[in-house]
Amino acid sequence: MSQTLTHESTTRARRALATRLEILRGAAAAFRERGFHATRLEDVAAALGRTKGSLYYYFRSKEEILYFCQDHVLDGLLAAGRAAERNGRDPGAALERLLATHVEQLLGEAGGGPAHFEVEALPPVRRAAIVAKRDRYEAIVHRLIARGQRARAFGAGDPALLARVALGAVNATARWYRPGGPLTPAEIGREVARRVVHGL
Amino acid sequence: MSQTLTHESTTRARRALATRLEILRGAAAAFRERGFHATRLEDVAAALGRTKGSLYYYFRSKEEILYFCQDHVLDGLLAAGRAAERNGRDPGAALERLLATHVEQLLGEAGGGPAHFEVEALPPVRRAAIVAKRDRYEAIVHRLIARGQRARAFGAGDPALLARVALGAVNATARWYRPGGPLTPAEIGREVARRVVHGL
Repeated sequence: MSQTLTHESTTRARRALATRLEILRGAAAAFRERGFHATRLEDVAAALGRTKGSLYYYFRSKEEILYFCQDHVLDGLLAAGRAAERNGRDPGAALERLLATHVEQLLGEAGGGPAHFEVEALPPVRRAAIVAKRDRYEAIVHRLIARGQRARAFGAGDPALLARVALGAVNATARWYRPGGPLTPAEIGREVARRVVHGL
Repeated sequence: MSQTLTHESTTRARRALATRLEILRGAAAAFRERGFHATRLEDVAAALGRTKGSLYYYFRSKEEILYFCQDHVLDGLLAAGRAAERNGRDPGAALERLLATHVEQLLGEAGGGPAHFEVEALPPVRRAAIVAKRDRYEAIVHRLIARGQRARAFGAGDPALLARVALGAVNATARWYRPGGPLTPAEIGREVARRVVHGL
């Protein structure tokens, strides 16, 4: 009985996540087209062929969609980052794989766009949570670069500065990428990660 | 007589530009601190110890400050880009110098910050003008990379994609840079440009 309940609630949670991701994709497209600040929740609902009321069940404001987008992607990046740290025999290859995954997650789930960048638009408590996760992820990249430097895989240089430059290059893909272009998110990820790691 | 008038109007134009740049620096600091959308023109005036009325003579809205910032920096970048194209015996060195100048101009004049990125917040006509200038500058970087590839100074790869990755890395400096940090804009510019060109 309790197992059935657990199973039911897991299924429900999975369905809710799938719906949230579907709403995110529609919202991200609207943000890309009109800009985050000019988009209303009504526009997102209309683009998805939903009523505003049915959207409201999942997100009570466009800021909540923003938070979900950034939080969801950062959870994925932190998991990939921890995996890269655990399994680091070749620090250059581990970092390259991590940055390729980073681009793929950034572009794949919601097609890039301003939803990844509008941290200022979040309410203060949400913003602090996102900034803290982002800092933890940046610290992983920083440590991977420092490890690569110790292993003489990378040249000398301030690893904090280099982590920011590397992350700047991979994050910028979300500014110019448009779904349906000639390259897939995975292809862009591989090419960008290769260049960035080579630059280190 | 007409020469005196010309001289006077040049002096006046130079003074107005200096005042506009001073207002821009104050505004950029306010945007960095509170975010562009949460900053009011009154906040900028207060931070500068000016009345809103005296600010109004130079900028009628914070969107006008934004436009001035982006337009002014892009004019500098286009001039540097044209110089790099003219004098290109060594395409790697020319691109490296250009990207270092890019970072220095981005961080030096207004201390970086969101003023460089909030293109969406511009009124449509202004936005179109900025996007057109940005595209012209990106095309210069694209051509310099293609030239470096023909000279075998850089590896193979889509020069349009590589131009965007390179510009992503240099533009990202304006997101994390804070005036008064351990490195000057020129030092950051040299370090970032060196890594980016090496990555190509």
